[in-house]
Amino acid sequence: MTQLDAVLIQEKVAQATAILNQLDVDLWLTFARETSMNPDPVLELIGVDVTWHSAFLISRAGAHEAIIGYYDADNVRELGAYPTVTDYHEGIREHLLAALERLQPRTIAINYSESDVSADGLSHGLYRTLHGYLQDTPYLDRLMSAEQIIAAVRGRKSATEIERVRQAVATTEALFDEVEQFVRPGMSQRQIAGYVQGRVDEMGLGYAWPRPFNPIVTCGPHSAVGHAAPGDVVLERGHLLQMDLGIRQNGYCSDLQRMWYVFKEGETAVPPDVQEAFDVVYGAIKAGEAALRPGVPGWQVDAAARAHIVDNGYPEYMHALGHLVGRSAHDGATVLGPRWERYAGICELPVEAGNIFTLELHVIVPDRGMMSLEEDVLITEDGVEYLSRPQTALRHIS
Amino acid sequence: MTQLDAVLIQEKVAQATAILNQLDVDLWLTFARETSMNPDPVLELIGVDVTWHSAFLISRAGAHEAIIGYYDADNVRELGAYPTVTDYHEGIREHLLAALERLQPRTIAINYSESDVSADGLSHGLYRTLHGYLQDTPYLDRLMSAEQIIAAVRGRKSATEIERVRQAVATTEALFDEVEQFVRPGMSQRQIAGYVQGRVDEMGLGYAWPRPFNPIVTCGPHSAVGHAAPGDVVLERGHLLQMDLGIRQNGYCSDLQRMWYVFKEGETAVPPDVQEAFDVVYGAIKAGEAALRPGVPGWQVDAAARAHIVDNGYPEYMHALGHLVGRSAHDGATVLGPRWERYAGICELPVEAGNIFTLELHVIVPDRGMMSLEEDVLITEDGVEYLSRPQTALRHIS
Repeated sequence: MTQLDAVLIQEKVAQATAILNQLDVDLWLTFARETSMNPDPVLELIGVDVTWHSAFLISRAGAHEAIIGYYDADNVRELGAYPTVTDYHEGIREHLLAALERLQPRTIAINYSESDVSADGLSHGLYRTLHGYLQDTPYLDRLMSAEQIIAAVRGRKSATEIERVRQAVATTEALFDEVEQFVRPGMSQRQIAGYVQGRVDEMGLGYAWPRPFNPIVTCGPHSAVGHAAPGDVVLERGHLLQMDLGIRQNGYCSDLQRMWYVFKEGETAVPPDVQEAFDVVYGAIKAGEAALRPGVPGWQVDAAARAHIVDNGYPEYMHALGHLVGRSAHDGATVLGPRWERYAGICELPVEAGNIFTLELHVIVPDRGMMSLEEDVLITEDGVEYLSRPQTALRHIS
Repeated sequence: MTQLDAVLIQEKVAQATAILNQLDVDLWLTFARETSMNPDPVLELIGVDVTWHSAFLISRAGAHEAIIGYYDADNVRELGAYPTVTDYHEGIREHLLAALERLQPRTIAINYSESDVSADGLSHGLYRTLHGYLQDTPYLDRLMSAEQIIAAVRGRKSATEIERVRQAVATTEALFDEVEQFVRPGMSQRQIAGYVQGRVDEMGLGYAWPRPFNPIVTCGPHSAVGHAAPGDVVLERGHLLQMDLGIRQNGYCSDLQRMWYVFKEGETAVPPDVQEAFDVVYGAIKAGEAALRPGVPGWQVDAAARAHIVDNGYPEYMHALGHLVGRSAHDGATVLGPRWERYAGICELPVEAGNIFTLELHVIVPDRGMMSLEEDVLITEDGVEYLSRPQTALRHIS
């Protein structure tokens, strides 16, 4: 635990109390044990790994308390986020009930969710244990899902979190610049991806999604589209090169795509079919950006970008325009996605200030390859701030 | 997924069916989603990471089926452990219900447990989703905890698993030999631990428990006892050096302790107080070994070793004699531990053939330091096979 990590957790715990007030919930209880084997995803935001049964209590009134096996208690004290840390030797039950008696919460949010995996860290066995503790108390009937709280705590980035994503994005952009110097026609997807992975590994960085599929590299029209591992397809002149790269730096992720065109011999300008596709994809991202502001449901942002694609005569992309980015490449439920069955519910969730979203979409250029852009943007009170330097023109390889 | 990892999972899935027959359970259902964020610990034994809602079904009659989002289905097919893999695009519900209709299980074990974290991979949100699917079917009332199944599947090591622990143990013993050449009086705990960590890192190995506490090094009588990070205490002549090291190699762990005595100037034999302590600790491990065979409850094994310590006039150790080792350093619930409240239930569980246990205990030698040994042993049908070369005499540093 570095000092900066402790500051981050202090920020998130303070933020949680503000969110409880906004959502009118009295208490958020994170109940966990042996999290190295069975983690609760919220602990990376508001706690540390624990061994014995442990409770992190955050109240609407501003109480921040932890009840922890004596073995792990100093780790929690060092966070500086929980002024009251109770350590125990024998069992947590009496200490937890005493805290509830003291706090008298009318509502107690716990970490389960059917729709949001990041809010579903409470195991069913732990739920049963908690249920047993609360049997014959008034608190059993006051349990509720913490999914709205967790979505807000994870989704609304603090100053430290925004800075970390910004750094991961800057590192990723530098890697795009490096690989541009490396790439030559005749190289395979595997060679190109391997160069980037070599640099990521050398720099001691992590991957925002599993390394076998990171970066994704498509070379021309013969590559598989989507989450495929880089293969033996070779980059040819007159083709498009697309790269989708996400790194993890200091615990936070980037997720960006960049596009290059490989000039044919003697060619000095991008051919019209390629340029038009770039302009349409870029225009769709700008259309999404224009619709993106706090309070708008995700599907409306997607609809703006999607309409731009369809209106320009291209087939619509079969995925969502954007997802949250942060601790993970898919960092919480809200999507900027169409009202399809697979996005039911989560595309209705409103965009919030402090969210960081991807904006990403593609079209296929016949005989050239995939034209796909992806930017990372922060939602501000007024609209959008780009964390990436947006790609406003095709890059090229000679 | 290497070929050898696939073989391992094939072994475990086959073993699970045998265990279902023994325990008289019709079906074991592992229900999971987005396991990279919210893992189920059983999947490292019987599956792979999945994204969308997924089900792994293992029946008493030998059916091995998986229902997986189409994206991940090929990863499951490549395992070769599930002859029937159904991939889906829209939702898992109808496919899961169809499988239950086909298999007609009278009992369905799912992954929750209050006492065993390794059997508690089902989140409460997933439980609620499953509950919703099974509402209005006869299967809802047939759900039960899979904790006994999972304890057996994790605890009874297959041939491949035993071989991997054996390799991790051999590597650890080689590291003890290396560090013995490195250590000199005057070095600090930190220097000694740092040397070992440097070698572990160079060899690309993992740690069986977190690196800051691995290895644990105690130098003489002034070191903290237990899970403390190595500090500035210096190894002096006439003192004991103890090291507790566990590595992870190919996904499997070792957990061993070794003891050295540092000769004083001119000393050529181990002093009597030190030798007596070694003999008593070694004798207690042998006493535990003699009691260790399939069917014996864990507490009886501990009691045999504990009695040897107490009968020889030393205070008893305040922990369990042994725990399971495998995927993790604490690899499942069963302990060879006393009938204390903190081991309630789990010290009553019987030892089984195929278990791998540590045997570990210590006494304090006044003015010398901690005398502590730890071996890793496999339970066979007849008794015990040492995976480590047991330490039968004190090692020394001149």
